[in-house]
Amino acid sequence: MTRRIDSEQLWADLMALGEITEPGRPYTRRSFSPLFDEGRAWLRERMHATGLTTHVDAAGNLIGRLSGTNPSQPAIVVGSHSDSVPSGGRFDGMAGVISGLAIARALGEHGIELEHPLEVIDFLAEEPNEFGLSCIGSRGITGCLTADHLTLKNPKSETLAAAVARLGGDPAKLPMAPRRDIGAAFELHIEQGPVLEREGIDIGVVTAIVGITRLEIEFQGSAGHAGTTPMQGRRDPLIAAAHMVGWVQRTALELATGGRGHFVATIGIIEAMPGGSNVIPRSARIVIDARSEDRRLMDEFRQRLDAESRSAAQAANVERSKLACLSDNEPAACDARLQAVLKKSAKTLDLSAKFMASGAGHDMAFVSRVAPAAMVFIPCKDGRSHTPEEWATADALAAGAEVIFEAILEVDRTTASP
Amino acid sequence: MTRRIDSEQLWADLMALGEITEPGRPYTRRSFSPLFDEGRAWLRERMHATGLTTHVDAAGNLIGRLSGTNPSQPAIVVGSHSDSVPSGGRFDGMAGVISGLAIARALGEHGIELEHPLEVIDFLAEEPNEFGLSCIGSRGITGCLTADHLTLKNPKSETLAAAVARLGGDPAKLPMAPRRDIGAAFELHIEQGPVLEREGIDIGVVTAIVGITRLEIEFQGSAGHAGTTPMQGRRDPLIAAAHMVGWVQRTALELATGGRGHFVATIGIIEAMPGGSNVIPRSARIVIDARSEDRRLMDEFRQRLDAESRSAAQAANVERSKLACLSDNEPAACDARLQAVLKKSAKTLDLSAKFMASGAGHDMAFVSRVAPAAMVFIPCKDGRSHTPEEWATADALAAGAEVIFEAILEVDRTTASP
Repeated sequence: MTRRIDSEQLWADLMALGEITEPGRPYTRRSFSPLFDEGRAWLRERMHATGLTTHVDAAGNLIGRLSGTNPSQPAIVVGSHSDSVPSGGRFDGMAGVISGLAIARALGEHGIELEHPLEVIDFLAEEPNEFGLSCIGSRGITGCLTADHLTLKNPKSETLAAAVARLGGDPAKLPMAPRRDIGAAFELHIEQGPVLEREGIDIGVVTAIVGITRLEIEFQGSAGHAGTTPMQGRRDPLIAAAHMVGWVQRTALELATGGRGHFVATIGIIEAMPGGSNVIPRSARIVIDARSEDRRLMDEFRQRLDAESRSAAQAANVERSKLACLSDNEPAACDARLQAVLKKSAKTLDLSAKFMASGAGHDMAFVSRVAPAAMVFIPCKDGRSHTPEEWATADALAAGAEVIFEAILEVDRTTASP
Repeated sequence: MTRRIDSEQLWADLMALGEITEPGRPYTRRSFSPLFDEGRAWLRERMHATGLTTHVDAAGNLIGRLSGTNPSQPAIVVGSHSDSVPSGGRFDGMAGVISGLAIARALGEHGIELEHPLEVIDFLAEEPNEFGLSCIGSRGITGCLTADHLTLKNPKSETLAAAVARLGGDPAKLPMAPRRDIGAAFELHIEQGPVLEREGIDIGVVTAIVGITRLEIEFQGSAGHAGTTPMQGRRDPLIAAAHMVGWVQRTALELATGGRGHFVATIGIIEAMPGGSNVIPRSARIVIDARSEDRRLMDEFRQRLDAESRSAAQAANVERSKLACLSDNEPAACDARLQAVLKKSAKTLDLSAKFMASGAGHDMAFVSRVAPAAMVFIPCKDGRSHTPEEWATADALAAGAEVIFEAILEVDRTTASP
């Protein structure tokens, strides 16, 4: 089937946006920074050149809009975010925004008029930033940006409300009622994991964006002299913590391979206090990051973790002094109909595709609260992201944009007014 | 049997020395500090009052000497150290020095003249100090204080040589030939562990001072996104490190209970790098402190540790990138004859006694290189030391001093000139 996305222009645009970076720290374009403004000025100019009218909404999102032939139809949204982490890459987020631009361009170049308006959105501040709140823009259009959020301050004591206003937003209208005029939303993103590349698959159709639960466990024992305290009768809390490291890995593997959907759990933080080589630890702490697309898996994991950590404490003759939930997000399901449309589009385009969950958070997790939302993953080199080495090929990028382009045509057709 | 140590005076002296402390941080009298000088001035005065002549030797040790009746006999030494760790206690070290003083006093009070000269020694800087070298004084009299050691500098850029000179030592004579004129050396010390108190035993007769080996193991895997990297195929080095924590504990317990002497192993330091809750660690590091009175136990432990850490790495699909020996001391055996004499003395005094290894380092570990050396442990509350709560009873202290007093009489008698 003929491809209609201009792959070369898509790639050139993405690389041009990537050039707008802190020179000494590629690739860095953090939200709310002067470079972020520069990136948006460039984006706005490209949107205009593509025939879109632009505005910044109340939440500070940059929106390029193409009218549809039927003003009563809800919008079809395609977008992601243009901000980066420090020393990040040129694909995470940007690939989704630039793909939206390429889709709008393809419509014009092929003389296709949609019934629905098309919105290409650069969601504000998806990445962690100096306000300590991610997904600011996508929270904003879904009623999830609260009055409390708007009082958050950056290190220069600027409030989030003031920063949103500085970018052209209208914080007085926030927390506003969620948008109810979106008929479908799409986001293209690099996978940020190794699965598609490893399996040689072109397209990941995202089934759900995982819920993330962070748990902290602390064990308390008795500090002691490493030389004079006999092995018998020690109360070493690190023994219990270390047991939990192995248990979490084995249990997560069991849950992940049970055919009940995506599940992962990671211990990236472990601490023994006071942390001297010649002192039996007084306490030991682990932080567990668990993610699941199905709340029931997470509930089961938490129940088993609770029981196992109690019995590990008992076995080591220490106390499980803390099992705290540091944060807890619900998983967000992608729209089933849009998933099917994306899968069919991939097939039409002769691209291999698989259903998969997203282990990372995305703007679509918020958008899915107010509209049917879906995501397309494309393979990225070695599964890496948030690093200057982050990479996807021009072909992979064009393929992903093409799948969304086809899906948009399909949605426009099948939800046309009678 | 009549006790000859003046328990009340012994206790009063110990408490008086304890009062010489940083007022805001009891009990702190660190070596080379003005307070350390103050403590030594007090000690010197007490030695004089007890009839000892005092001098500082080349290594900076304060020595109070009582002549014997036979000038050709080697000295009998009794001592420990008067310096403390920051926020330490009033017993660790000081109890041994003050006991020496009490023993000399008891000789005078009971009109006992020894053939051998008696030396009460306050060994310089046994505890870790600002030069990063412990047991400075006891190293010094045994030929173990090297020219390199003497160039060590404290944060004020004073060399160790200059600091030893400042205390009245003669660094030009160091590294000097080891002293060969010591016939027997005794040290009383709090156990710093829970065994005597738990078992209700009065006296520990030390069999050996453990050798301490510090080992560092590092595992290298692949960092990854905690959400997007499936459980299958992860290369998480913390899994291997955590396995080793459990293994070290189980193996040390096995070695400790095999009837082959004192063995302990402790992991007080564990680190996952980079240490973010949402990042699968790139590397993980543990530091193992292993102590044994028998080199063969340590050799076996190290061999098994090597094999197990390799196989743990293999099982977790990571590299064991490092197994480094950070430090390694040989165990020091206490003199068998002096052990027997101490045990017999305890029996004579109707005190319960057991043979036990010292899991902590002591000045006698160095002294044992040049002379028959032995140690007496007394119970301390909850096995605690290096804390202001460090505590032993006046009775326990007097009992320990009494045992050494009897042993000195026995040694003097049995090694008398014909």
